[in-house]
Amino acid sequence: MSQYVAPISDLRFLLGSVIETGGILNGVLDLSDIDAILEEAGKFASEVLAPLNSVGDKHGARLTGPVVDMPPGFAEAWTGFAEGGWNSVTGNSDHGGQGFPTLIGTALNEIWNGANMAFALCPLLTQGAVECLERVGSPELQQKYLPNLISGRWTGTMNLTESQAGSDLAALRTKAVPEGDGYRITGQKIFITFGDHEMTENIIHLVLARLPDAPPGIKGISLFLVPKFRVNADGTLGARNDVRCVSLEHKLGIHASPTAVLSFGDEGGAFGELIGEANRGLEYMFIMMNNARLNVGVQGIGIAERAYQQARDYARTRIQGRPVGIRSDTPLPIIQHPDIRRMLLTSKVRIEAARALALEAAASLDRGRGANADPAQLAKGELLIPICKAWSTDLGVSVASLGLQIHGGMGYIEETGAAQHYRDARIAPIYEGTNGIQANDLLGRKLLRDQGAAMKALLEEIAATVAQLAEAEGDDLAILRHRLSLAREVLVRSTDSLLTQAQEDMRTALASAATYLDLAGCVIGGWMMARSALVAQERLFAGQDPDGFCDAKLMSARIYAEHELVRAPGLEVVINDGGRCLLNYPDEAF
Amino acid sequence: MSQYVAPISDLRFLLGSVIETGGILNGVLDLSDIDAILEEAGKFASEVLAPLNSVGDKHGARLTGPVVDMPPGFAEAWTGFAEGGWNSVTGNSDHGGQGFPTLIGTALNEIWNGANMAFALCPLLTQGAVECLERVGSPELQQKYLPNLISGRWTGTMNLTESQAGSDLAALRTKAVPEGDGYRITGQKIFITFGDHEMTENIIHLVLARLPDAPPGIKGISLFLVPKFRVNADGTLGARNDVRCVSLEHKLGIHASPTAVLSFGDEGGAFGELIGEANRGLEYMFIMMNNARLNVGVQGIGIAERAYQQARDYARTRIQGRPVGIRSDTPLPIIQHPDIRRMLLTSKVRIEAARALALEAAASLDRGRGANADPAQLAKGELLIPICKAWSTDLGVSVASLGLQIHGGMGYIEETGAAQHYRDARIAPIYEGTNGIQANDLLGRKLLRDQGAAMKALLEEIAATVAQLAEAEGDDLAILRHRLSLAREVLVRSTDSLLTQAQEDMRTALASAATYLDLAGCVIGGWMMARSALVAQERLFAGQDPDGFCDAKLMSARIYAEHELVRAPGLEVVINDGGRCLLNYPDEAF
Repeated sequence: MSQYVAPISDLRFLLGSVIETGGILNGVLDLSDIDAILEEAGKFASEVLAPLNSVGDKHGARLTGPVVDMPPGFAEAWTGFAEGGWNSVTGNSDHGGQGFPTLIGTALNEIWNGANMAFALCPLLTQGAVECLERVGSPELQQKYLPNLISGRWTGTMNLTESQAGSDLAALRTKAVPEGDGYRITGQKIFITFGDHEMTENIIHLVLARLPDAPPGIKGISLFLVPKFRVNADGTLGARNDVRCVSLEHKLGIHASPTAVLSFGDEGGAFGELIGEANRGLEYMFIMMNNARLNVGVQGIGIAERAYQQARDYARTRIQGRPVGIRSDTPLPIIQHPDIRRMLLTSKVRIEAARALALEAAASLDRGRGANADPAQLAKGELLIPICKAWSTDLGVSVASLGLQIHGGMGYIEETGAAQHYRDARIAPIYEGTNGIQANDLLGRKLLRDQGAAMKALLEEIAATVAQLAEAEGDDLAILRHRLSLAREVLVRSTDSLLTQAQEDMRTALASAATYLDLAGCVIGGWMMARSALVAQERLFAGQDPDGFCDAKLMSARIYAEHELVRAPGLEVVINDGGRCLLNYPDEAF
Repeated sequence: MSQYVAPISDLRFLLGSVIETGGILNGVLDLSDIDAILEEAGKFASEVLAPLNSVGDKHGARLTGPVVDMPPGFAEAWTGFAEGGWNSVTGNSDHGGQGFPTLIGTALNEIWNGANMAFALCPLLTQGAVECLERVGSPELQQKYLPNLISGRWTGTMNLTESQAGSDLAALRTKAVPEGDGYRITGQKIFITFGDHEMTENIIHLVLARLPDAPPGIKGISLFLVPKFRVNADGTLGARNDVRCVSLEHKLGIHASPTAVLSFGDEGGAFGELIGEANRGLEYMFIMMNNARLNVGVQGIGIAERAYQQARDYARTRIQGRPVGIRSDTPLPIIQHPDIRRMLLTSKVRIEAARALALEAAASLDRGRGANADPAQLAKGELLIPICKAWSTDLGVSVASLGLQIHGGMGYIEETGAAQHYRDARIAPIYEGTNGIQANDLLGRKLLRDQGAAMKALLEEIAATVAQLAEAEGDDLAILRHRLSLAREVLVRSTDSLLTQAQEDMRTALASAATYLDLAGCVIGGWMMARSALVAQERLFAGQDPDGFCDAKLMSARIYAEHELVRAPGLEVVINDGGRCLLNYPDEAF
């Protein structure tokens, strides 16, 4: 069975030296706290969560009669997770949370997902429910539900999708009718992650539904809180609510995560409470979804790291063949074969870039909120969210696929475990808004609403880094500067080109949105690698690299430059010229 | 359940008008024969094989006691396949085969793999055994085994891998000791595709093993024929031989294909017959493997076509959202969303390019063999084999992944069927020599043995097509000419660069071999698209395009130019500069 070791050195390097954390951590945490948190999280991940990853895949979540039967060990792991305080890390301290910034939550999320992606969905969704209630719930609702959701005594879910309403929520039909002190909810929701289980005594469902007098379409959707067990005034649990798990999906991966069909109201209607104002449900969901999208991006990074580690460990121990150019009387580990190194290292550097990008996004959101909120930082964080979500989850799939490939024939055998990562990783580009939806969001919402201002500000930051690279010494940084500078110019021109296209013909621009997102991820990832490399170079010159971490980081940045940034010019042509021919293709000729 | 319709229009177009078949089909088949063959094959594929694809995935091949239990319908399908003459298409007419060229066999192979990849492995392996015996078996062996292998009354297998000997066959340990009129074989082989089953009364295993006095390493490997049941002089079946299926692998995909661990000699040794000369087994296997590699490349194309068709059909019927820029009061099918079109069409044009490339490779092999054999054509065919294998199987995975993505959440549910293609496709980059091995073969064997002569001859052919494009009219062809010309120049320079690198430091060159192969596939695929486009343009001008096929083909070529060929310059940088940093990375820092 594969081991998992949390990438603590890299996280510590990024949090301690690359990401600007001054305004975020001040007065909350210092770096030694962060070290301690990462160490403890890494321990829990390696010892408790990671060994359950394969168990969860084999056993899966099963519906046995009316009860969702979780894989062995999952309930205990959840209890340990909650008791360890891991569920309450970012929760508001008014309701028992630790009030840590999103940045820390994001770093920890990578660890949970690397250890056990299916398990990590439970806190991810609960976190979404918490955040939604913190932002828009009434003080009464907060008081009633937040403490137990934050502590992990209860878990939370998001109920959006219906069979006819997937990416298009305007089509949803679930009904809410006022009754007594609440609402009666009837309808059926599908794809509800951790929609039912017995790990906790209660589950809090956030449910999108329509009021009787609601306008049609997306402006008539409200958000309701529907508990599995009703909660009495004194906080004790009351009657079972009329929400039932009808079935669980038989999925390609994340078998341990119960994906439920939930039926509301088979016995007359489920009791629900309105969250915030009527008809603003979709707006509230989008507030919550922003963070969830960042976290799903981080899932891509976590699963990529896990797949990478397993492939690397295999490559170090699998003896096969005598690599050309190395003198040896005996066969050697396959990590000595040039093509195996290519697969491992291109995986590794993409993970490093995506990790840094996700943390920069989280830090920007932190800077954009709270006491000294900087709106420009918020805009930057929101710009980065769809990029992180789509780019990192595509990367999760490609790295898991490379990991499997490195195993050769053994990779295709389920017992090896590499195939599980390939199966698990494949959901992340789909849920929480498909990657196509992310590309539309990047263009249609993030880029157009400020005519590219946030992106242009980011491009200025990248230009400043390019200038820093020009002043630095060494071949690696010179090559990096050259490649980053070229790639940045491509992103500058492509941003203008796409904005112009969008003005002339939005459909053509949308046909290039996914490629633009890929380009943005590639270039911004390169920027983060450059910032890391500058820090690493400085430490190397100061003789502060006892373990070779900074030396390797510099080389990673160069590999990224020569293998990833070089893709940018090709993408520019696709963005400029590639859209129209996709739209003109005759429908019947597909 | 997803339907499958064989891509007959495209195959007919390529075989009839794009691939030069003069020297191949003369006197054997005319185009109306080919039409009839394709139609019949398409019918058998759609009606018999395709409906079993999902059945095979769910049921899988199971080892029940000593017997391999195939999924329902597979034995009958095999009987139908053999009785329909499909197994004997390319077999030598001296032993009951129809003697058709590899080109026709390759076109049919795509159809079988598109319909049911797991099933198609059985004829693929049998075909390998047939070819091996035809080339190097003694007349006695041929007489004894070929008629039943060609007719499909028996099936064949290839026994290479042992647990310590995967890509490195030098490490194999299975023994062969002379005894009586044959050899006694003992040892264990793994990953034996269709290694055991009850669909036919006998199975003929070709087995690599070492004679007692054999030199060490790859020069001491001989090839043996080991039947499941011994065959008497009169052709009747004799005693059960001492070869047993010990277990079946639990795989990510191709569940209906029994991947066996075979044990030879648990009860004293299996009877085997030497094929060809002692100690030349690996050489013989490589002869056979060339065609098998082409066929595995074709598997990638077949599964990609299947995944594409399913995604396209879903995109035409799934109603979701109102695409920007199209006036509609009601939601529309998702095929109207620009990003869905991007995913479908980039899949489609890659499939078209890879299909044409595979047929060109097959035709080159046909031209290079037989009565009027042209050695330059053989060299070209052999050059194209690793490209077709690796490039097309990577494409199979990426297209299957896009197909799943187009389904959104439904794609992740196993019942939908898109996930099966994603799982099935993933084996093809691994077996029959991993794609890394293909890249090494392209550089180390194909490019270096003639110092790039075959590649340069091919590049001249491409230059001639570029010149033809320059003389043609129309925007599509002008753009295609521009992009193909640039990409061709990249391949010219990269070939020289890699040959120079190989001379200076083979290890560095090998680190870029996979990228070079990707580039070669991209450019040669573009060449095939250009040749198709030229034919299409001519027909359009002549008013011979009643069904819009040629119009669409021109647009496909343009999409290929603007989405695929534009990647070439980026790959050039990787090939020139990307190798060294992969080799220098410190082992402990991975």
